[in-house]
Formats: sequence, structure tokens, C-alpha cells
Amino acid sequence: MIKKSKPLILVVNDDGFFSPGIKFLISVMNQLGDVYVVAPNSNRSGLSHAMTLDKDIYIEKIDSVLNHFICSGTPVDCVKIAINKILPRLPDLCVSGVNHGSNHSINALYSGTLHGAMEGTIKGIPSISFSHLSYSYNVDLSPFNKIVNDLVVKILKNGLPFGLTLNVNFPSIPFPAVKGIRICKQAKGYWSEEFKLTMKDDSKEYYNISGSFEHDAKDLDTDAWALENNYISIVPISIDSSALNNFNQLNYLQYDF
Amino acid sequence: MIKKSKPLILVVNDDGFFSPGIKFLISVMNQLGDVYVVAPNSNRSGLSHAMTLDKDIYIEKIDSVLNHFICSGTPVDCVKIAINKILPRLPDLCVSGVNHGSNHSINALYSGTLHGAMEGTIKGIPSISFSHLSYSYNVDLSPFNKIVNDLVVKILKNGLPFGLTLNVNFPSIPFPAVKGIRICKQAKGYWSEEFKLTMKDDSKEYYNISGSFEHDAKDLDTDAWALENNYISIVPISIDSSALNNFNQLNYLQYDF
Repeated sequence: MIKKSKPLILVVNDDGFFSPGIKFLISVMNQLGDVYVVAPNSNRSGLSHAMTLDKDIYIEKIDSVLNHFICSGTPVDCVKIAINKILPRLPDLCVSGVNHGSNHSINALYSGTLHGAMEGTIKGIPSISFSHLSYSYNVDLSPFNKIVNDLVVKILKNGLPFGLTLNVNFPSIPFPAVKGIRICKQAKGYWSEEFKLTMKDDSKEYYNISGSFEHDAKDLDTDAWALENNYISIVPISIDSSALNNFNQLNYLQYDF
Repeated sequence: MIKKSKPLILVVNDDGFFSPGIKFLISVMNQLGDVYVVAPNSNRSGLSHAMTLDKDIYIEKIDSVLNHFICSGTPVDCVKIAINKILPRLPDLCVSGVNHGSNHSINALYSGTLHGAMEGTIKGIPSISFSHLSYSYNVDLSPFNKIVNDLVVKILKNGLPFGLTLNVNFPSIPFPAVKGIRICKQAKGYWSEEFKLTMKDDSKEYYNISGSFEHDAKDLDTDAWALENNYISIVPISIDSSALNNFNQLNYLQYDF
């Protein structure tokens, strides 16, 4: 029997290469395949699907042995340049994270972690985004090793339907209290922003953005419900946001000249 | 009979306040309501739903009479700060654009123009994104005046289903050849990137990203087909990207511990 070659796995994130979350994800992927890491050189949270068009970006190999690279661009840039300039072939899997903080509900739209994985999906690579609801860099991710390993093995074996990225979120509770894994839809939510005036001169006002995350966890089929009830949530996210079910309501807008 | 107050309209874009596309959109909105403009101070193309978390952003009123503001942030920042710090109340409508260049097919995911409007949708404001397939700043948008006006009047009257943004694209053809308006779904597509090495030092390689847009215009119900067949395309885009139709395929991933 010929030994099959190991799967090729691309690891990315948005908190940057030097965050503990990606170190954990790299350690789990090392158990499963040949790993390339291409991650931002510093925090790129909240950058969604942004790519860098207004300036050049750089990559730098930061380990003489391991295939670990930092990049000055966004998470989406990291995936694009990894595929174009770094990896020996299209990878078998792209994983992103583990993000320090929630990417469930409406946060999916803002998340650089999820959108890094979604860029993998656009390129036809089965892609998974992982986030932990704790924003603390001290959170112990090690109990999730087996769960991440098991999920990745299943996806490497079965693939994913075209155009879908898995958005996985871990609840912020002691691991023994975690009850299981639920496939969910995204809960309704929004950020209620506060803008703090930091400086003012003759013509300009400078503001710092912060805010609180409001969401609805009532519906049993949502990620917010699952997470508040001690489950890990997995939302299949589509790269195509066309609202097919609403076409009839909007038909009155179409006509021929 | 008491005269109803005029609708309050927020205008944003991603090409920046000084692009011709937003000037045109402002001129049409001035025919319909009280207009506030909060737009980036320079080009912010390709920034998707990015928001600025790593630094302060500023706003500057650049007209002594008109409510025209420039902002150092992303299109999403512009909408957030407009609602929080500039507008007298939640607007009746948010329009974004007119973008110089395509935002159909997969471009919807990268577009700052569309995502500025989507931030309006998250806040509960009926929101529309407009783009013209020509990247030229010299394109004559004036023939689209009546179409934009008519569409906005309908949306001001009827609103939009919760969570949906209209993604409107104009074909790049002489206006008399435009045949009508179609409600469409997003066509499959992707960007085939090229990374040009611009500089190299001891440890880093600098690259400039460019690429070509590949898409499939075969299906008659897609925006790519409509645009290639001389129609204006309108895709209703959902702020919720959960792939509800694929839950059964992924059920095998859920279990209790």
C-alpha cells in the first residue's frame, strides 16, 4: 500500500501571527498535515473582506525551518498571496483563527477571521473559521484540541458544499460544561456604537469607536442561543448573499424600458 | 393639509467625496429630500465591511451651508459616525455610490460601496448601493437620473424587507441601449490575482496586487447575464449569510458530548 501524502493546510487569522489563538490552531493542524501559516504581522480585527489596493504588501518568512510567514496585509490578502506566491499547490484545507472574541451573529460580517476563511472558499478550498467568545489572550484553548481535530478530519474527508465556509464559535465557559455541537443559523444582532471625542481642532473632530454587541438569543436554531446554552455553534456561511426568498416581494421593481 | 417633512437621506460611497459618482448621486437625492453626505476623504475601494478599530477617525464639515462631511474612516465608519454624531435623526434612506466600477457577482463581497449601504441596513434604514460598470471617472451618469429617482421614490414609499440591501449595477453601454431593470441573483465569480514583486530586501518581499475578474454569465437569472444583455441588475443582498438550504448536508457534524 502506498502511503498517501499528508494534506496541505493553510492557517490564517486576523489577530496576527503573534496571538495565542493561532499558535493553538497551528499545533492542532501539525497533527494532521503539512502546515503553512500566512498571518498578519499585527492585529487586523474588524477588517471583514477588505483587501489592500492602495499600497504594496510584504511577506516575510520568520522561521528558518517551518513554513511560517507574516504579511503586512489583511487576512484576505494573506490567503491570496499564500495561494499565489507561497504554497506549492492549492491547499486541501484553509483554517482561520482561533479568534480571540465572538464572531457569531452579525459579527460574521465584520470578522477578518471568518472572511480570511471565506477567501479560501472563493478559491474552492474547504475552509473553516474558529473563534472563542472570550477576548482574553489567556483563555485555555487546549481542551478544544480533540474537537477541532475531529471536525477537520471530517471536512478533509467529505469536503464542503461549494461556496460555504464553516463559522465555528466556542462558548466562553469552562470546557467540562460544553454540551455539544450545533449547526445553526446566524442570530439577528447589531453593534450599538459609542463615539468618544478625543481631539478637536479648527475644522476636524477626532473620535474613537467603541460599542456594545446587542443580539437576540431567543430562537433555538440560532448561534446566539446555542452559545448561551453551552453549545459550540457552527454556522454554514455562503459567499453568495443573494436573498433568493425575497425575489417575489421585489418583483415590482423590474420592468422593460 | 399639513405638508409632510421631506425625507432625510444619507449619502455615502467608497471612491471618496471627491469622485464624480457621488456628486451625481447627491444631485439626484437633492431632488427628493434633505441630504447629508458623509463620505471618505479619499478612495477606500475594496474595504468591504471593514471598520476602524486601531486608530481614531476624524470628520470634517467641508461646506459652510450644505451638510457635506468627509471622514478619514471606511465607508462603514462613515455610516456609523453619521448616525451617531451628525444626523439629526435616523435617516429614511441610505444610498451609496455611484461606484466607478462593477460591484456585481463576487465583487459584492469586496465592495466598500455596497457594504456602506449594508451598514445602513443593519441599523434598520432602507439602503441602496449603486455602481456603474465603467471604471472611468468621465462616464456620463446623467441619463440614469430618472431611473435612480424612480427607484428611490418606490423604496421611500414601500421600504425594504428587514435585512436586505439593494445592490444596483448599471451596464457600461450607451444609455439608449439599456433595455430595462432585472431582479437577479449574484453570479458565480472570482478574481484571478497577479502579485507583482516590487521590492525585495534581506528578509521581506513587497508585492502589488492586481488581477482579472472571472465570472459566469450563462444563467439567465444572474446579475452577470443581465448586465451583459444590457439590463440594469438589482440583487437583494442579505446581511445574514447563513446557508439555510445546506443544513441537512451538514447535520452529521452536530452531536452531544
